[in-house]
Amino acid sequence: MEWNLSETEKIEDLQCKGYKLIQNKESFCYGIDSVLLSHFAKEMKKGSKVADLGTGNGVIGILLCAKTELANIVGIEVQQESYELAKKNIQYNKLEERFQVIQGNIKEIKQLLPRESMDVVVSNPPYKKASTGLTNGNLSKTIARHEITATLDDFFQATSYLLKDKGVFYLVHRPDRLVDIFESAHKYHLEPKNMQLVYPKIDRQPNLVLLKMVKNARTELRIDKPLIVYSQDGEYSKEIKEIYKNQKGVM
Amino acid sequence: MEWNLSETEKIEDLQCKGYKLIQNKESFCYGIDSVLLSHFAKEMKKGSKVADLGTGNGVIGILLCAKTELANIVGIEVQQESYELAKKNIQYNKLEERFQVIQGNIKEIKQLLPRESMDVVVSNPPYKKASTGLTNGNLSKTIARHEITATLDDFFQATSYLLKDKGVFYLVHRPDRLVDIFESAHKYHLEPKNMQLVYPKIDRQPNLVLLKMVKNARTELRIDKPLIVYSQDGEYSKEIKEIYKNQKGVM
Repeated sequence: MEWNLSETEKIEDLQCKGYKLIQNKESFCYGIDSVLLSHFAKEMKKGSKVADLGTGNGVIGILLCAKTELANIVGIEVQQESYELAKKNIQYNKLEERFQVIQGNIKEIKQLLPRESMDVVVSNPPYKKASTGLTNGNLSKTIARHEITATLDDFFQATSYLLKDKGVFYLVHRPDRLVDIFESAHKYHLEPKNMQLVYPKIDRQPNLVLLKMVKNARTELRIDKPLIVYSQDGEYSKEIKEIYKNQKGVM
Repeated sequence: MEWNLSETEKIEDLQCKGYKLIQNKESFCYGIDSVLLSHFAKEMKKGSKVADLGTGNGVIGILLCAKTELANIVGIEVQQESYELAKKNIQYNKLEERFQVIQGNIKEIKQLLPRESMDVVVSNPPYKKASTGLTNGNLSKTIARHEITATLDDFFQATSYLLKDKGVFYLVHRPDRLVDIFESAHKYHLEPKNMQLVYPKIDRQPNLVLLKMVKNARTELRIDKPLIVYSQDGEYSKEIKEIYKNQKGVM
């Protein structure tokens, strides 16, 4: 099969079992947050039904296929261009049997998927409120980063609708949104059970938070040891190297 | 003045401007949490009116007197024995002009202090739910550690009643109660603005959380760099040494 990449597309090696990702150079490209989320979320039962809300170019679903034996992943993506790219990535990696993608807005989740049909939901949603720091730049990037088409609360509402009782929600977000996250989690009965803060360096504020929430569970939060990305010499820390090595290691 | 210490009492040097603390050896003794909270909370205006809810033997009020020029601190303590000890400590350190203590239950705050009369509230409340890990041991210790006479939510309600608009609440607690903390904070309009997690070591789960909340403020949380207590060689970390040195330094 010939792969006609457009001039704005590039192929990146995901360093895991040979999986690759086509990205749009002018659009939103995957970052360490997707890698950390798929690592954080990888303890799933083989038969789990998993939804990825705001799947973008499909990187999280593909990483989950690479790291686990999951065979029942569905991604939802609102943007036409990203949706097409996710489909292309699924075909390119021959994952049609394990990972599907639907185009739609998670605010219309009831028209897209059945209630309580999922064991797990994962999401790397837009981090910023619609009102903050909007620019006149690339619209696709803006939608991926800002709550234009759906808010954080919409993501929680959709997740709660999709999850079975005791189903699990894995989320990566910014620590400065933690108050909003806990508020929506409480509203939709998604109990925070496990949280890890990601600090770029040991003497810096955290810039990511990883959360595991369980639907209708009792209150009991465990906060993990800090995840430090760079050691003081500017190299990736031992732990981050381990996470990336695990991707390579299972090739 | 003669100081008749009972057999169960001991005097500890607070290592700050010569202030000392009488503690009951069989009761609750102050720990690193009080030192960290008074350090975390020390940015206060000189004329601020400050309440310390659940003041115990008075350690936080005395540390605040030692570290700042505050002259308007009131402590509230429910237990007779601790209340007497706090009064003794205030006299011993000649702080009667700056630090008063009232005996009472913070659930009856409306009978104790006027509404919106405080600029700042600080608290190191009992960490554990009444139902968890109760033993038949020392009652005074049990009340200091468990929510017997007042719950976390009661502390928030009392704080919200006491604080003026934009007044500040400094709290030290356990990270596993973060969900409850955020829920009560939301309920009583105390917006989490600043949070620091205290990790015993870099590769361990945090065991304390320091929080600054502001009454009726807008949502915007900043999470600080991690506070690591011990370095890998088992010594106090540079930062903790600095905090303790600052106590000595101003003597």
